[in-house]
Amino acid sequence: MRGSHADGESLGRVRRVLSWLSLSLGALVLFALGAAFVYTIVLGLRIATYESRDDPEHTEAKARYLSTLAEIGRDGSAPRPDIVLILFDDLGHGDLGAYGAGSIATPNLDRLARDGLRLENYYAPSPVCTSSRVGLLTGRYPARALLNVVTFPTGDPMEWALRAGGAPATRVASEEILLPEILSAAGYATGMVGKWHLGDRSPSLPLDRGFDSYLGALYSNDMTPFAIYRGEEIEHEAPFDQTRLKSVYEEAAVDFLDRDHERPYFLYFAHNFPHIPLFRPEADRGRSDAGLYGDVVEGLDDSVGRILEVLERRGRLEDTIVIATSDNGPWYEGSPGMNRGRKNQTWEGGQRVPFLLHWPARIAPGRESDAPVSGVDLVPTLLSLLELPPPPDRALDGEDVGAHVFDGAPARDRLLYYYGMTQGGNGGGLDAVRDARFKYHRRRGVRTGGTERVSVNSDMGPWLFDLDRDPNESWDVSTRHPEAMARLATAFEARVREDERNPRGWR
Amino acid sequence: MRGSHADGESLGRVRRVLSWLSLSLGALVLFALGAAFVYTIVLGLRIATYESRDDPEHTEAKARYLSTLAEIGRDGSAPRPDIVLILFDDLGHGDLGAYGAGSIATPNLDRLARDGLRLENYYAPSPVCTSSRVGLLTGRYPARALLNVVTFPTGDPMEWALRAGGAPATRVASEEILLPEILSAAGYATGMVGKWHLGDRSPSLPLDRGFDSYLGALYSNDMTPFAIYRGEEIEHEAPFDQTRLKSVYEEAAVDFLDRDHERPYFLYFAHNFPHIPLFRPEADRGRSDAGLYGDVVEGLDDSVGRILEVLERRGRLEDTIVIATSDNGPWYEGSPGMNRGRKNQTWEGGQRVPFLLHWPARIAPGRESDAPVSGVDLVPTLLSLLELPPPPDRALDGEDVGAHVFDGAPARDRLLYYYGMTQGGNGGGLDAVRDARFKYHRRRGVRTGGTERVSVNSDMGPWLFDLDRDPNESWDVSTRHPEAMARLATAFEARVREDERNPRGWR
Repeated sequence: MRGSHADGESLGRVRRVLSWLSLSLGALVLFALGAAFVYTIVLGLRIATYESRDDPEHTEAKARYLSTLAEIGRDGSAPRPDIVLILFDDLGHGDLGAYGAGSIATPNLDRLARDGLRLENYYAPSPVCTSSRVGLLTGRYPARALLNVVTFPTGDPMEWALRAGGAPATRVASEEILLPEILSAAGYATGMVGKWHLGDRSPSLPLDRGFDSYLGALYSNDMTPFAIYRGEEIEHEAPFDQTRLKSVYEEAAVDFLDRDHERPYFLYFAHNFPHIPLFRPEADRGRSDAGLYGDVVEGLDDSVGRILEVLERRGRLEDTIVIATSDNGPWYEGSPGMNRGRKNQTWEGGQRVPFLLHWPARIAPGRESDAPVSGVDLVPTLLSLLELPPPPDRALDGEDVGAHVFDGAPARDRLLYYYGMTQGGNGGGLDAVRDARFKYHRRRGVRTGGTERVSVNSDMGPWLFDLDRDPNESWDVSTRHPEAMARLATAFEARVREDERNPRGWR
Repeated sequence: MRGSHADGESLGRVRRVLSWLSLSLGALVLFALGAAFVYTIVLGLRIATYESRDDPEHTEAKARYLSTLAEIGRDGSAPRPDIVLILFDDLGHGDLGAYGAGSIATPNLDRLARDGLRLENYYAPSPVCTSSRVGLLTGRYPARALLNVVTFPTGDPMEWALRAGGAPATRVASEEILLPEILSAAGYATGMVGKWHLGDRSPSLPLDRGFDSYLGALYSNDMTPFAIYRGEEIEHEAPFDQTRLKSVYEEAAVDFLDRDHERPYFLYFAHNFPHIPLFRPEADRGRSDAGLYGDVVEGLDDSVGRILEVLERRGRLEDTIVIATSDNGPWYEGSPGMNRGRKNQTWEGGQRVPFLLHWPARIAPGRESDAPVSGVDLVPTLLSLLELPPPPDRALDGEDVGAHVFDGAPARDRLLYYYGMTQGGNGGGLDAVRDARFKYHRRRGVRTGGTERVSVNSDMGPWLFDLDRDPNESWDVSTRHPEAMARLATAFEARVREDERNPRGWR
């Protein structure tokens, strides 16, 4: 009796396994066929619509706006300080001496902090290269430009994958207004050295978008072919020997700054390092206590030193706005300091990066601020400083923080939004929002445990972090601070609805 | 002419796209069919071999070893201190007052530090629950037991997935020798309260494996059905109301300790918290500055307080070894302190956790040590303390660190190995190795950038981190310390070869 009972059990088990297996097999085949079909349709649509993406209405509005700026510029009474914007790639909050990096010596960047302003809570507009640059140069969160992703070289398999995956843009559209276009219209001589990463073909190349001169790489140094362009011509063929990158970029920056400019000038020095792969000249080998990464960062500091040296020699250091910052947090190497997470993440470590602002004519030395400031504030702040109006046809997301950063006035209460990487992206991708103290973090995608959803309480978010006490985002304090939780949740939801209603922020 | 040239180009492009699409489609279908076939074969084999996995030869050797211990135990001359081993689940390095958590008050755990020893560089044997417990209770890295994964309840879809994915074990095998089996053989009364997670069916249940009594959950509190067992019977049906977990576990621990034991005793108090989902009794709501997570950790500290209170009341505190530690780093919430990474990762934050050791009879109060110590040291250290021989048929990976931790003798030079989560796992899974200062971290799986591999230098590892200066593992210093790099790389490779040659460590 026992034997046959056990046999019946075995038989039942075999039958269950077999039926489960055949179901699995069928499901897999159906899934593959369906996925291939959808993929084909989507890819076809993407490719068909790809080149007609620019928006003629707002391209015209932009042209009108830039002519207005040109008229104001010709008036000649408004301030026009020279501006040097230094942007490092993947440099972390903890990678500079001024931010506590014991193993890396950065005396020139530290000098900017000593004689200027150091921001403790500066946020790159996005945790990834392209999007962050879009935000910095437009004053709008990258979702506005449908660029919540990193772009890849034309023809790269990753570019195909992004387009097939639904990325609506792989270059910055014509209608977006970039800082160099604003400054050029307002009368500045504009030069760029370094990594562009907003598209590798017209009409989205640096010379198409407001720069008078350009020397650099069109995208990241781990993308191929990696060549160095002067204007729109290749100056150094791919594969460029990146041990020479330091000197080539440094010379180009010095060359621009050492010219006798008849107009005020804007230099955008966007270095490819310390993004990987890392290289340094033989002379820098082993100079830091932080290995190759530290050697490269100390090399970047040398280049900042050369820039300051030219400004000093030409008597321009006092009156020039010098900014040094990073596009997002550190990737594989590099230090996020006390912050949680790294590049590609909307944890603090992905976006909270160094920001130094040096302008002796206006900024008292050795100032520090822990007010939240974002890269999207740069354009509105400069517009205000230069007495230029904002564009009438679109929202800017940043605020004019000039009174605070230049003059030390108290920072205004405000909210900063964190947009993650999303491919679908029409206005989407919002992950988090912070005020002066708290961060509301909504983790999208909830893990299940066993056969039941386990998010029976706040374990999986949304979370509220007290950034003053807990920059590592370790402890959700929503139960302790329900009013802050409610306030930020409301702001978050309102922003999501607004992004859905008007993703591009047109007015 | 231009027109027809452009048309020809378009046609060529369309043709390329079409041929690419049909190739992709075909590849996808073939891939799905192949995957389904392999899956079926593998799953069938796994299921067929599943129940016959225990090793009779070493199960016999184990029985002989345990009888030897029993004989030695009957002799009665060796020391037999009472032992209370407290293991928290997913508690991070930065979650206790004694480790710098400003927002969570843990006076009872801090008392263990104040009156005992605090280890700064203690490592859980693995960054994940099951494996870590295997390592702690066997004195061997979890790869030895083919348990580099977390186990799921019998019949859970995740258990099927693991078995289909190649996990060679989903419960601890009979031939592995567990600490409670050793202590029971050596004459201890053994009791367990809390999370087992080494299998949810015989012969791998607590009462099968050396414990005289058991009250607790057989696996994690996010797995279902979540019931509380007494012995092998359900005491509280699933779904158990986890707001009661604190009091149920606390009472069971106090009950065990408050008995008049005629033999020395061993209590293994393995709490399910602060693993998610988190719950606390109404009375604990809002008590901490770190939200629900902090409230739960303060509740755990209460339970430690109750344990110390009983020991004190019964005059046993002086002579009892009390250990409090965690199975791995924090998961979604919880603080890894200054360390990089979290649970499931072989970054420091995944395995470096608190370890407090309180034994006034032998340990001077307020001691701290930054010598690397691992959970796999527990068994060898206790064997030595209790004057018991190691098992002759197998390697133990831990070392006897008694002279250092009990008496403050200088720590010996040694290497600690970090095994990641792997499903295939025969002896595999080695990610990293550290000595007193440096950690060699080999990242398996190298990302490619664009169409070329970018790991042209050390950007993607293997890396060498200087843990003294850089617990955040931010900067590879292999170029600065080539001799340390070579030494640890050699040790790493030797270990991999040894693991391949003799994964189970049989002698």
